[in-house]
Amino acid sequence: MQFAETDMAGIVHFSWYFRYMEEAEHALWRSLGLQIAPPGGRLGYPRVSASCDFKGPLHFEDEFEVDVRVEAVGRRSLRYGFTLRRGTDILATGAMTSVCVETVPDRGVRSVELPPDVVTRLR
Amino acid sequence: MQFAETDMAGIVHFSWYFRYMEEAEHALWRSLGLQIAPPGGRLGYPRVSASCDFKGPLHFEDEFEVDVRVEAVGRRSLRYGFTLRRGTDILATGAMTSVCVETVPDRGVRSVELPPDVVTRLR
Amino acid sequence: MQFAETDMAGIVHFSWYFRYMEEAEHALWRSLGLQIAPPGGRLGYPRVSASCDFKGPLHFEDEFEVDVRVEAVGRRSLRYGFTLRRGTDILATGAMTSVCVETVPDRGVRSVELPPDVVTRLR
Amino acid sequence: MQFAETDMAGIVHFSWYFRYMEEAEHALWRSLGLQIAPPGGRLGYPRVSASCDFKGPLHFEDEFEVDVRVEAVGRRSLRYGFTLRRGTDILATGAMTSVCVETVPDRGVRSVELPPDVVTRLR
Repeated sequence: MQFAETDMAGIVHFSWYFRYMEEAEHALWRSLGLQIAPPGGRLGYPRVSASCDFKGPLHFEDEFEVDVRVEAVGRRSLRYGFTLRRGTDILATGAMTSVCVETVPDRGVRSVELPPDVVTRLR
Repeated sequence: MQFAETDMAGIVHFSWYFRYMEEAEHALWRSLGLQIAPPGGRLGYPRVSASCDFKGPLHFEDEFEVDVRVEAVGRRSLRYGFTLRRGTDILATGAMTSVCVETVPDRGVRSVELPPDVVTRLR
Repeated sequence: MQFAETDMAGIVHFSWYFRYMEEAEHALWRSLGLQIAPPGGRLGYPRVSASCDFKGPLHFEDEFEVDVRVEAVGRRSLRYGFTLRRGTDILATGAMTSVCVETVPDRGVRSVELPPDVVTRLR
Repeated sequence: MQFAETDMAGIVHFSWYFRYMEEAEHALWRSLGLQIAPPGGRLGYPRVSASCDFKGPLHFEDEFEVDVRVEAVGRRSLRYGFTLRRGTDILATGAMTSVCVETVPDRGVRSVELPPDVVTRLR
């Protein structure tokens, strides 16, 4: 990880772990041929919940991996589980749930069903 | 909130909610005459868990409040509950648990008991 | 400033100074009755340059002020100057230049003239 | 780049370019066998100036490169030049100057000369 991600305690600020989990989610989508935010697209996937248990610190220039698992694919929501590891050391475990929404011009956002190809590939 | 806190979905990125909760925690400490990171101090309060349920979006220049409650003061740990509100709309609820650690030069970090004045004032 | 804005050197990471300057810019617009990013608006003000000279560090919980001056209002661009102060100590001076652009659906972004009310009020 | 680095204008917020430049600097140090923030070290390299000219936007999931050049190695300071490219498109050019400082316990920070191995390898 990077210098700007540390805080004055000398370790990565906990809020970054949520960004690392999100980056792993997006890499998963790409690896399945999916785009979570295609240019001009009207669908989005905001979080409805996010949680993390922190088991060990990350230091500047540590290398680590984030494993991501799709834990549930509902009609309108997705749930992921995450494990952050440095080698065999587990640094954190987390979970995030997102819903699918559509942006309707001048009328805001409404919950919609997940697109069929997203459902198929994430399952 | 601020422009740099939004993302391309046009709303505040969810990771910022955790920073808003932390800022409310630190404001609470200050209001009680406590310093969470005094210059030269050896005690720290890393997170062991953090979670948030998101109920509504925050937009650029929205004003909002974060209510913080001390939910538990243990011998070595603290648990807070948070509510983010814009007026009477609840935008998110969250929780964070921290432990007290001491940095020992050249020997890393070890769990220690909360200082008595922290226990007294937070209770 | 806030804990998450510090880095492992114990001071605010320099990249935050640019965000503080931007926040001062947006506060200036609000104080003049202008909105830099009105909902549904098609105009934006991306940076074409930004610079900062750092003269002193910011620490956790330091309070500081950012003075902003409009240094030039062109037909298509704006230039600001900034001074970050803690009391009478000058911590940094900076400058930023933005251009006005219009987002054209399906055709990207093109440079346009500043709206007349922006020109009038910023001058 | 990543979703959390975008803003509501749909592109990477300009403040991230400074972090990308810093990451390129640190990668350069590593490639030369140098550590800019070794554990327990007392030397640091705060910025005294940073600037960037922005020539094109970065979008979500764009891949790009940052070229870094050491432009000057003084007795107490370092100056770098940067170019951000997506293929042959130049997205930004920047510069940063840092000084070498030593943290003296209980007495703060003072300017010192660059270590000889840093001078040798960066030249």
